[in-house]
Amino acid sequence: MSSEQQTTRRIVLAARPHGEPKDSDVRFEEAPLPELADGQALLQTLDLSLDPYMRGRMSSAKSYAAPVEIDQTMVGATVSRVLQSTDSAFAPGDIVLGYGGWQTHSVESTSYLRKLDTSSVPASTALGVLGMPGFTAYSGLLTIGAPKEGETVVVAAATGPVGSAVGQIAKIKGARAVGIAGGPDKVAYLTDELGFDAAIDHRADDFADQLKAAVPGGIDVYFENVGGKVFDAVLPRMNTYGRIPVCGLVANYNLTELPDGPDRSGALMGQILSRSLTVRGFIQTEFANDQFDSFLRDASGWVADGSLKYREHVVEGFDNTLDAFRGMLSGKNFGKTVVRIAE
Amino acid sequence: MSSEQQTTRRIVLAARPHGEPKDSDVRFEEAPLPELADGQALLQTLDLSLDPYMRGRMSSAKSYAAPVEIDQTMVGATVSRVLQSTDSAFAPGDIVLGYGGWQTHSVESTSYLRKLDTSSVPASTALGVLGMPGFTAYSGLLTIGAPKEGETVVVAAATGPVGSAVGQIAKIKGARAVGIAGGPDKVAYLTDELGFDAAIDHRADDFADQLKAAVPGGIDVYFENVGGKVFDAVLPRMNTYGRIPVCGLVANYNLTELPDGPDRSGALMGQILSRSLTVRGFIQTEFANDQFDSFLRDASGWVADGSLKYREHVVEGFDNTLDAFRGMLSGKNFGKTVVRIAE
Repeated sequence: MSSEQQTTRRIVLAARPHGEPKDSDVRFEEAPLPELADGQALLQTLDLSLDPYMRGRMSSAKSYAAPVEIDQTMVGATVSRVLQSTDSAFAPGDIVLGYGGWQTHSVESTSYLRKLDTSSVPASTALGVLGMPGFTAYSGLLTIGAPKEGETVVVAAATGPVGSAVGQIAKIKGARAVGIAGGPDKVAYLTDELGFDAAIDHRADDFADQLKAAVPGGIDVYFENVGGKVFDAVLPRMNTYGRIPVCGLVANYNLTELPDGPDRSGALMGQILSRSLTVRGFIQTEFANDQFDSFLRDASGWVADGSLKYREHVVEGFDNTLDAFRGMLSGKNFGKTVVRIAE
Repeated sequence: MSSEQQTTRRIVLAARPHGEPKDSDVRFEEAPLPELADGQALLQTLDLSLDPYMRGRMSSAKSYAAPVEIDQTMVGATVSRVLQSTDSAFAPGDIVLGYGGWQTHSVESTSYLRKLDTSSVPASTALGVLGMPGFTAYSGLLTIGAPKEGETVVVAAATGPVGSAVGQIAKIKGARAVGIAGGPDKVAYLTDELGFDAAIDHRADDFADQLKAAVPGGIDVYFENVGGKVFDAVLPRMNTYGRIPVCGLVANYNLTELPDGPDRSGALMGQILSRSLTVRGFIQTEFANDQFDSFLRDASGWVADGSLKYREHVVEGFDNTLDAFRGMLSGKNFGKTVVRIAE
């Protein structure tokens, strides 16, 4: 081990954002890392995953996970290279999946690391199609949505890492897949590259009418990761006994107050009642113990045989992390957002 | 068979109500009944069941069942006496459960009739604790709510035929039962007679605080049959992985427009997400084929051994039907509402 102390460049939360995170809500700083204790590894971050849930961690509101404290490093999954290790199972040069956060280097307990086999797929897939986003799609769609052959599955943010997997897994299971995305390039990608049965641009003036036309038999499963006006257009099209796995509500994350009325919450409950709908919130961790291994086996096979494609939106350079994060929250990414911090 | 033609006195829908049904929304009339065809019975209505779902049938809005047409007899389950029959399985004098509607006599196909054994329980229980309301409680609570031993179940309209069964079945299954009702008599009845662990008056100024105090471990199952401000107080108390079977929303049924804002529908979805809640609308017919027989066996046993008590709110006289219906929608009944039309 080197006796020189390793430092990290990191992004800490400076203030809880009100609406879209501002530059002043975070702070870049350089800090020393601790010496390695037993069972730890010093890691160099190669790729940092940016995901919508991180907006929730910036807030102090009650959620499914504790918020990031002020002056603490923003959390996040990372693909990293082992530089030093006090665990013989991890050697310098190993490429691992960890949870290093928004920083260039980290010290982590090796019990949280998973060694990645990069012989057939890029390591960054462990942050997307073969990682948490892919597993979110797999577990939520199959366990809660449970699409049957011939049923119609609708998903928004459909070119993102979760949505694209939802639609493709729906197809693999014999369902119809209808994707919603923003802009003609994304819409074309859904049908031309990913094999969705239909795709709709939520920016179109007649979006609700286009959706109606795309689901002549109604909607059996709506995988909710957006909320807002997409949900408003979807709800009247839901079939009796329809299922709505609620995975995210990115349209709400930067809202600073409740929208103007009227209050439609009672009407929403009325629709749930009159159509016998199932609306079920979930976080993928609920299913990880039971299903992650089968997911990894299934999804690796589907990636290998071409039935599950993925696309990455790689942003080069640690300095661009906050911009990339804001872009992802507003749909400017095209595919899974990854910040490439080192090669 | 008599050659004299039988007539019926009946209540037809005269207009679709706007808000609470007015006298002018219905019309009493006398009409002849048809001669019996094969496999039919002429019935004299003894007891007419009044239930919240009937308000939905008065509206033309899309729901889980077709609306009653203007000038048609209002629908409803009835306990009736067979006067004549062209089916040898039914004899004059038999007491049957049927679907005769709001009228003094009816002609029904015998395939829709169930002969009632009145040796140990009154026939009217087939309209309440041993009928559709009891089955609604049983199927929704056990299939969707699925309370585990020691979990907390909350139900509103808790002295009504559905709510009282929900709480008592929760107790039978080892859960804590907390009931919500309107007025001190009903609240006392829940704890003193039905054995609920706690009961709260929704008319109290500090209702939400009382509810919070009554569920120190949070709420695992909320059986929703009311909506409105009760739901507003319940939602923040729901535990992670909580279940909300949505059976009815009686607080909304007479609403003529959406309430003022802000719009809390997105916030409701946010709660479903952050607490991993299951919100599931249902109508008991969904489960009838699979579960009605086991319900009738279980519930009859519980009634016999005293663990499932019931209370009837009997209104004497067909002329009082509409008043009784309005009273039930506004919570003036105390127990299962039945109109006694004949002895």
